[in-house]
Amino acid sequence: MHATLKEIRKAPEGIVKAQEAFELIKNEVKLPKNILYIGCGSSHFLSQLLAMATNALGGKGFALPCSELMYSKEYYAIDSPELLVAISRSGETTEVLKAMDVLNIKKLGLTAYESSLSKKADYALIVNTPEDSVVMTHSFVAFYFAYLQLLRESYGHPTFNPEEVSELARGVLEKEEYIKDIVDEFDFSNVIFLGSGILYPVALEAMLKMKEMAIFWSEAYQMFEVRHGFKSIADENSLVVMLVNDPFDWHEKLVKEFQGQEAKVLVVGKESLNANYHVEVPQVDSLLVPVAALPVIQLLAYYKAVKRGMNPDNPRFLDKVVRW
Amino acid sequence: MHATLKEIRKAPEGIVKAQEAFELIKNEVKLPKNILYIGCGSSHFLSQLLAMATNALGGKGFALPCSELMYSKEYYAIDSPELLVAISRSGETTEVLKAMDVLNIKKLGLTAYESSLSKKADYALIVNTPEDSVVMTHSFVAFYFAYLQLLRESYGHPTFNPEEVSELARGVLEKEEYIKDIVDEFDFSNVIFLGSGILYPVALEAMLKMKEMAIFWSEAYQMFEVRHGFKSIADENSLVVMLVNDPFDWHEKLVKEFQGQEAKVLVVGKESLNANYHVEVPQVDSLLVPVAALPVIQLLAYYKAVKRGMNPDNPRFLDKVVRW
Repeated sequence: MHATLKEIRKAPEGIVKAQEAFELIKNEVKLPKNILYIGCGSSHFLSQLLAMATNALGGKGFALPCSELMYSKEYYAIDSPELLVAISRSGETTEVLKAMDVLNIKKLGLTAYESSLSKKADYALIVNTPEDSVVMTHSFVAFYFAYLQLLRESYGHPTFNPEEVSELARGVLEKEEYIKDIVDEFDFSNVIFLGSGILYPVALEAMLKMKEMAIFWSEAYQMFEVRHGFKSIADENSLVVMLVNDPFDWHEKLVKEFQGQEAKVLVVGKESLNANYHVEVPQVDSLLVPVAALPVIQLLAYYKAVKRGMNPDNPRFLDKVVRW
Repeated sequence: MHATLKEIRKAPEGIVKAQEAFELIKNEVKLPKNILYIGCGSSHFLSQLLAMATNALGGKGFALPCSELMYSKEYYAIDSPELLVAISRSGETTEVLKAMDVLNIKKLGLTAYESSLSKKADYALIVNTPEDSVVMTHSFVAFYFAYLQLLRESYGHPTFNPEEVSELARGVLEKEEYIKDIVDEFDFSNVIFLGSGILYPVALEAMLKMKEMAIFWSEAYQMFEVRHGFKSIADENSLVVMLVNDPFDWHEKLVKEFQGQEAKVLVVGKESLNANYHVEVPQVDSLLVPVAALPVIQLLAYYKAVKRGMNPDNPRFLDKVVRW
């Protein structure tokens, strides 16, 4: 079995590891209200998730790719953050370590290991989820949940029950065969992921997973932005994946519009919206929907890679740690 | 001749129209420091450009797609803006009109016509650049320049000389034959646009133009983000377009890295960086580089569409005005 598939399936135990990591620092660290998040690639999309969770919980979060903070920060509205949260699975990414020097404020490192990042930061949230896969899989889910718990604790919201969240991840992983069948049955030649709010960074991460594992034409947009030009590429060879937490009539219209272009639609969410495919996500707090959606899109990218004869464990041109 | 090509070539006269529009309202409107920008599609990418210019000139700018402001605003760090700038070429886009109702603050409409948008807004910057093309072309450049002048005037920076800026646009349009030759000579099957800071929204707009006109696999990233997974898709069939204003050693390394993957690189900027192709942009203020880069990427998308047998005047599945 591919290491990548094994790692994707570890999401439920990642939640347990995440809770352990959170418990270890919850008495030491209280997050301030104004936080800047940095990361690269998947970690940048994770930093967007964390910034959005920060805003939703009453703080002020902003996310930037490391290199933009280093070389172009004058173009962004960086508003006197009190804390810099730097994210890197390995903790050895050149850009994240360099970007930490840009701002003279307290730093928290979010990483899977004792590493250059954890040593350089004032605080470290070390989520013990090492991965054999080159691409980030269950560690992405675990990092998100560990930090989400810390945010909730710091801002005076009750933390989530980790057993319930672990069960949520286990539940969606049971759809593995259904997801594999979609890929087997429909040999789509491009894929568009759509999500609004907290589900937009999940769409972006899905787009990246698809490119990394399957070397494949994949796109991601904020849900309704797609009608403004981008939808021209969707036809009978396209799969459109809509991540929908709170559906209303525009979502159903959008499903119909894509079907009118002969594309097929997969809805990941509570309701099927008359889509061609549906992976149901139970009713949970909107900040937990990413925990349910991420394994689904990881499995979709994994099976597409296998279908295309790629080796997801050894993606073309990529290294596990990106250095300069 | 396609209407779209005619409209692209109008960038220099668009600058003149932009200056006229600016002159008309410069005594009536003084922009505040904290501004939220909204738009959809191309107008969203334009709103990102304007937000970045706002930050670079000492204000605080933030950009959101209209639908994200309407349905997911709790996830974004919207920090008590004093003005909402709403952008729509037609001034009739459903989402932009609806999104204007979300915040009870002063509004400025940026549009090509007396329209529902201009009537609904407290102030209107009407840039008289109607277009026969379905996709936004020279009006994008003109809107940017008109508003940039207003920003500079409002924030106490000297305005740019419109004749010089018009000349800048004319100069890059002289490269049309060279750009056409790239497309004729190299039948690339995907294209990645890269830009940092103010050139990132230009890369995004390039990606969209390519999809709209050529129904084609196109991508856009912040310059150095591309190494974090996305670059897996670049091979001997790929064109990588690097928009570079201030090159340093990492840019040259990146050119080499893509060439090592057998991709071809086009640099749009002051220096060639040993790329396969080079469209030179003269040394100008960094906020003017978009004016030079936009016609280049529009021509590239136009000629790719023609090469692929598409009609850029009539893009598949698209309407000139997006309604719900």
